[in-house]
Amino acid sequence: MTSAETGPVRVTVWGENRHEQIEEHVAKIYPYGMHAAIADGIRENLGDGCTVRTATLDDPEHGLTEDALAQTDVLTWWGHAAHAEVADEVVERVHRHVLSGMGLVVLHSGHWSKIFTTLMGTTCTLRWRSEHDRELIWTVDPTHPIARDVPHPLIIEEDEMYGEFFDIPAPEELVFISSFTGGEVFRSGCTFRRGHGKIFYFRPGDQDYPTYHHRGVRKVIANGVAWAAGDRSAREYPTLLRYDTGDFFHGQGYRGPLQ
Amino acid sequence: MTSAETGPVRVTVWGENRHEQIEEHVAKIYPYGMHAAIADGIRENLGDGCTVRTATLDDPEHGLTEDALAQTDVLTWWGHAAHAEVADEVVERVHRHVLSGMGLVVLHSGHWSKIFTTLMGTTCTLRWRSEHDRELIWTVDPTHPIARDVPHPLIIEEDEMYGEFFDIPAPEELVFISSFTGGEVFRSGCTFRRGHGKIFYFRPGDQDYPTYHHRGVRKVIANGVAWAAGDRSAREYPTLLRYDTGDFFHGQGYRGPLQ
Amino acid sequence: MTSAETGPVRVTVWGENRHEQIEEHVAKIYPYGMHAAIADGIRENLGDGCTVRTATLDDPEHGLTEDALAQTDVLTWWGHAAHAEVADEVVERVHRHVLSGMGLVVLHSGHWSKIFTTLMGTTCTLRWRSEHDRELIWTVDPTHPIARDVPHPLIIEEDEMYGEFFDIPAPEELVFISSFTGGEVFRSGCTFRRGHGKIFYFRPGDQDYPTYHHRGVRKVIANGVAWAAGDRSAREYPTLLRYDTGDFFHGQGYRGPLQ
Amino acid sequence: MTSAETGPVRVTVWGENRHEQIEEHVAKIYPYGMHAAIADGIRENLGDGCTVRTATLDDPEHGLTEDALAQTDVLTWWGHAAHAEVADEVVERVHRHVLSGMGLVVLHSGHWSKIFTTLMGTTCTLRWRSEHDRELIWTVDPTHPIARDVPHPLIIEEDEMYGEFFDIPAPEELVFISSFTGGEVFRSGCTFRRGHGKIFYFRPGDQDYPTYHHRGVRKVIANGVAWAAGDRSAREYPTLLRYDTGDFFHGQGYRGPLQ
Repeated sequence: MTSAETGPVRVTVWGENRHEQIEEHVAKIYPYGMHAAIADGIRENLGDGCTVRTATLDDPEHGLTEDALAQTDVLTWWGHAAHAEVADEVVERVHRHVLSGMGLVVLHSGHWSKIFTTLMGTTCTLRWRSEHDRELIWTVDPTHPIARDVPHPLIIEEDEMYGEFFDIPAPEELVFISSFTGGEVFRSGCTFRRGHGKIFYFRPGDQDYPTYHHRGVRKVIANGVAWAAGDRSAREYPTLLRYDTGDFFHGQGYRGPLQ
Repeated sequence: MTSAETGPVRVTVWGENRHEQIEEHVAKIYPYGMHAAIADGIRENLGDGCTVRTATLDDPEHGLTEDALAQTDVLTWWGHAAHAEVADEVVERVHRHVLSGMGLVVLHSGHWSKIFTTLMGTTCTLRWRSEHDRELIWTVDPTHPIARDVPHPLIIEEDEMYGEFFDIPAPEELVFISSFTGGEVFRSGCTFRRGHGKIFYFRPGDQDYPTYHHRGVRKVIANGVAWAAGDRSAREYPTLLRYDTGDFFHGQGYRGPLQ
Repeated sequence: MTSAETGPVRVTVWGENRHEQIEEHVAKIYPYGMHAAIADGIRENLGDGCTVRTATLDDPEHGLTEDALAQTDVLTWWGHAAHAEVADEVVERVHRHVLSGMGLVVLHSGHWSKIFTTLMGTTCTLRWRSEHDRELIWTVDPTHPIARDVPHPLIIEEDEMYGEFFDIPAPEELVFISSFTGGEVFRSGCTFRRGHGKIFYFRPGDQDYPTYHHRGVRKVIANGVAWAAGDRSAREYPTLLRYDTGDFFHGQGYRGPLQ
Repeated sequence: MTSAETGPVRVTVWGENRHEQIEEHVAKIYPYGMHAAIADGIRENLGDGCTVRTATLDDPEHGLTEDALAQTDVLTWWGHAAHAEVADEVVERVHRHVLSGMGLVVLHSGHWSKIFTTLMGTTCTLRWRSEHDRELIWTVDPTHPIARDVPHPLIIEEDEMYGEFFDIPAPEELVFISSFTGGEVFRSGCTFRRGHGKIFYFRPGDQDYPTYHHRGVRKVIANGVAWAAGDRSAREYPTLLRYDTGDFFHGQGYRGPLQ
């Protein structure tokens, strides 16, 4: 067991941080940015069990340098208006770290981010409406650690609506299903494993609503961070290796397809 | 029910067709190319239930034009030495057709093709050895249509070895598991659904062995084609749409993230 | 391919048929019994592709003799008030046939039947309310044959409400999710495989509402029957067998645990 | 968070303890009983993180009284020769506790125990041979906590062979796949969730071999115990409840099916 496994979970909360600068009503709800509220919610729940830093789109390399990711056990991702501005090079770097074992928690409109669609292999599209629907989040897997101490249902008085069909691969674990005032439903809490990394998608959190101040939403995000942290042993990228007969432990690097 | 649903399954067998031209021992096993043997195996099993054409890397646009894909219910994919030569534009086109409902059967070294890694979101790497291992393919889901009339186990006297860890998302249905002379195991028959498309990965088939002349292997590939054909109703790409409250059927196109 | 595989699917629609005799308002909706309406809906959709007989609780051996089951490719099950009156011997017989390859479609309050709870291993309990909620049934797996030609959403003007937590094993395929006027959600279309048999659970259909006259509900049930029919090769009960080294095909019967 | 969640995991290791008394060669390998070796392996790995007691078939009520189960976070189960002697009343009690949240780790021939077949709903049969096959256990889900610090592959020099088809529901998480000298394969590490309980099945451990002295096998069992412990909040049996419209939190007891 490495010290990393027993030490606090090192979290990087990534926020696009554009709506907060452009739209006054968003800035009022989140005066320090949505990422600050998300970070507060994680600290509030995990306490000494985590260290949290934030990073935003406008930071150099979006605040996601090789070194920053190497020091991150779990990355949370909120983006919306500027998915296209995220550099492909950074997306590839994050992708590599996830497949190597870094946890990833994707929030709300992050469903359409480059990193999430790359990991899913699908369009990640859905139906939507931002008209103050009430959202009820129901637990369908009560044994899951992400559902621990979460009310059933979790009630969000108003938020944007997301509805099915949500074009994702079938989740490995479906933890939550939401309904909305208008009658739509959504698979709102989903886990996936890719390479050595664990991924949790959680639906709530449009910029127009104070969702990331909601106690229950913060609880779920913190649970998701703790779950996605995995075992945090040395990061390892899956690699094609040749093995001699009878030797199970000494793989040899690939030298090309033709003899 | 459209005529497409009741008519024969329209199959395109795609072959890289390079080993057959470069390596004499491969050409001896597959004088008309590996794709021809795969196509024969599908016809042998599905008979009037299919129409099969072939396409190869060196065809214009790799034989995978927009029109060709629109006329294809299921595409099978074998590539190995020249994954990098497949044009990104064609990969994007195939990806779009799969998400819109075209079936895809990925064979053997196609695990490392651009289209498969794009759909999976992972590295799709594995352990391997080409040393004439015997492969035993065991059915672990006897209810699955792809396992119908397949011996348990299916015995391949010699083929390349592929071993775990195979870096793919957990299959939605695990149909077959292989073991090899050396003791390695592999999830060798896996299904996935992405968008409106169905995907089947089947392991056997290195170019150095006569695997695609094997009666049982041909049976599985044909079963996989029939399964992946899906319902073949009009192809539809998943799209982000806004819905008014109370209107479930008339989505409106997306106009951007900012009000 | 046996003749059974190409011939029509032989369906037995089982109905408890008690509410229809005891409660006048139910008899008005279903003058020939709920089972008759369900049978009509299957015939309406599968036509010559099926032969349908009905059986009820009050028939000798509940109409589910060894011979009747041997001649049944798919059994549908609706029960509610009299689960306890179903003889254990008959439940064991049905269980054996499902594990041997007979398809099973469980409807609505059949969730609490002896056969379904035996197959699931859980309580199969849920939350409920019979207060004329509108039900919206959303497709979350558009590639699934059971969802073929089903409106998205499927709207049922009024029916009983079933809500989560529904105590079942995680479905192997989650096809439909329902929402209700009151805001509850339910995993309303679920598939399971047990032994050599395929099982589909579909939620709608309380006796107090005309749900089994609903065109869309009938479509789903018929799709479920077609899916559950499986390959209908010879029925085979999974059995513990000993195999000598190198002999993969000649299992020997078990003779007990001690040497 | 209750004190139970932060305190050590309370484990009951249940052993049939018959072979050890009847067969001298088993008694030599396990002089204090197989259950003692299993218990030692858990203590060896979890240390202060667990308290372990053992119980056997010949104890009053098999050592599984209501009070004993209420004080157990995770139960491990090894049985073989005397499955039929386990009292149905005790099986029902254990079943109720699992569905209410107690973890369960089923070992080797426990696959055919009353409690496991009841939870699975299938025959749980398989193919087998006790002829000193070498077993290789491969990790196919490297993100899973049960696979943490487990060699890939885990090598057991000799043990009984179990082969597919293993008649269980598709595991929710497939963690390990085994191969054997004879070429058979087996899904040897499987997780299931039933009700509020988590279940782990792990294959190795025939009484004729010293498998439970194997360091790696002990590691996996301990990991399985830690995983199955769940959140250990108050035990709760899933119950059918009626909810008024708009009241999500006050369910009413069921009063019968007829008005």
